[in-house]
Amino acid sequence: MRMKKKPAYTVAVVGATGAVGTEMIDVLEERTFPVGTLIPLASSRSAGGTVTFRGEAIPVQVLSKDSFSGVDIALFSAGADISREFAPIAAKAGAVVIDNSAAWRMESDVPLVVPEVNEHDIANHKGIIANPNCSTIQMVVALKPLHDRARIRRIVVTTFQSVSGTGKEAMDELMTETQDLLSFKEATPKVYPYQIAFNCLPQIDDFLPSGYTKEEMKMLNETRKIMGDRSIQVTATTVRVPVYVGHSEAVNIETEQKLTANEARAILSEAPGVRVFDDPAHKVYPMPLDVAGKDEVYVGRVREDESIANGLNLWVVADNLRKGAALNAIQIAGCLVKG
Amino acid sequence: MRMKKKPAYTVAVVGATGAVGTEMIDVLEERTFPVGTLIPLASSRSAGGTVTFRGEAIPVQVLSKDSFSGVDIALFSAGADISREFAPIAAKAGAVVIDNSAAWRMESDVPLVVPEVNEHDIANHKGIIANPNCSTIQMVVALKPLHDRARIRRIVVTTFQSVSGTGKEAMDELMTETQDLLSFKEATPKVYPYQIAFNCLPQIDDFLPSGYTKEEMKMLNETRKIMGDRSIQVTATTVRVPVYVGHSEAVNIETEQKLTANEARAILSEAPGVRVFDDPAHKVYPMPLDVAGKDEVYVGRVREDESIANGLNLWVVADNLRKGAALNAIQIAGCLVKG
Repeated sequence: MRMKKKPAYTVAVVGATGAVGTEMIDVLEERTFPVGTLIPLASSRSAGGTVTFRGEAIPVQVLSKDSFSGVDIALFSAGADISREFAPIAAKAGAVVIDNSAAWRMESDVPLVVPEVNEHDIANHKGIIANPNCSTIQMVVALKPLHDRARIRRIVVTTFQSVSGTGKEAMDELMTETQDLLSFKEATPKVYPYQIAFNCLPQIDDFLPSGYTKEEMKMLNETRKIMGDRSIQVTATTVRVPVYVGHSEAVNIETEQKLTANEARAILSEAPGVRVFDDPAHKVYPMPLDVAGKDEVYVGRVREDESIANGLNLWVVADNLRKGAALNAIQIAGCLVKG
Repeated sequence: MRMKKKPAYTVAVVGATGAVGTEMIDVLEERTFPVGTLIPLASSRSAGGTVTFRGEAIPVQVLSKDSFSGVDIALFSAGADISREFAPIAAKAGAVVIDNSAAWRMESDVPLVVPEVNEHDIANHKGIIANPNCSTIQMVVALKPLHDRARIRRIVVTTFQSVSGTGKEAMDELMTETQDLLSFKEATPKVYPYQIAFNCLPQIDDFLPSGYTKEEMKMLNETRKIMGDRSIQVTATTVRVPVYVGHSEAVNIETEQKLTANEARAILSEAPGVRVFDDPAHKVYPMPLDVAGKDEVYVGRVREDESIANGLNLWVVADNLRKGAALNAIQIAGCLVKG
């Protein structure tokens, strides 16, 4: 279901003052999305503030069930609880919801979309479209073109995820802990269960009885749904590292058809949303520091895995706030309105 | 070949002022190794300094070809070039060399030893025994008991390696870069090709034409040699992270026999040099911050990998300066003298 063509749309941003919400508003402006009216919404905690859009300070409104009257597109990034409660209200009011939380992703009547991979699924929405998890988005952008050519059977992925994936308060925590430690004070973690500065935390999201975290299971379940292939096997280890912005992933794949590293690089260099950044002889490989603020998914360190017949290793890095969240959501909105 | 039993041994430490050399001297003291005379050796750059051993300041001597007369055990940790030049000189002078560099590891007449795994190989030495690479040591300590029970066919490993693996100057660089960035100055990397603070560098050691780094190939070649099984397949991605001490590894294994997570935990809890630290419900898992200064290899996040029939994921963390280098070397020395 596409949207009725209009010269401009009323766009609500739920969680407008958060790390992703702020980025969403920036991306709407940068990409000159046809916004007629922007309605920044947040909890009462953030009321009284403003957000800046096209040079204008727009007051943040308190989210309520009456917030969505006349809204065409509602971008949600305020956590799963808020999405569960308010996305159906927004949809009922006539908005198309693009939800960045995990609340609706696995519902069968909610498309889970990465435009480079499965734009066609958008047509099936019933008022809510889900934006996938950040670590899944960048992986499927890099893997879909290889899957189309050689069919991926199995993925073993290990992530190095930045604190901005948790939100603004986690970015502040990394900063504060680092300052404290450099001043010979103790770090006092509040957002994370343990110190994140100068440490690695092998836990993202809650644990399930299987010993996997929810984040790790998202990488399996969401990848299958987005790729439209339930036969793909995925096993993941997701780890938080002391990086502000940019998620990195060591991705090992086994394919049905043989792909050489050169073939994989050639396929990826033609792929939408991908940049191949791979010249080891000149120390060219993607790093989170370099991709922060970039739209593309960067792939480097492409090499054949000699431990199996048809194996490849890749190093995949993207800005988790942009392609991993805000940009992907705005791209979905762009597909909706292009008519 | 064991060593002649003596009440005390003359021990030389080559690279005595480096990150690993300092740790070696600490471990000799902590473990009350029977040192009669300690001879700290270093390049002329470090001459004039002292090292502290058993409360005594011992002058650092400049390494020369005459340094090894009367030395029983020569612990080398001053880089591959120094080892290539001086290890044969030391061995010829009658010392047994325990070399922490990559210079001799893959020589067929040089045992490559992790005492918990292949102590028996020490007997075959011809004057030089090699200490494996840090990232390999902790992995094989954790995997050997599982291999003995279920035979490991393939390992997919991704590392999160601390800067102390590079040396003291890299630890200083992480500190200086962090301070500069917090003061809104630019980071100016010297030891690493790029900023390490708040970043991940997917390069450890030099690149080979295959696209793999030497570090990644060490994890294949050294694992096979230490485990004494050339059929084990290993594919590795090694990454430097902004952590001072402690390497972490996401290890995925495929075994010939099925191992449940409970069986693996039970085997590992009996294994020498291993501590199982695995209770997700109570957020118990190993982190580099906690293992710094510890002797054991910590294993957590043990879980069955459902993407293949006989798969397991593990998270393996150890102090790279201790078990990954100094402690392992002193353990080898301990085996030599226990007669």
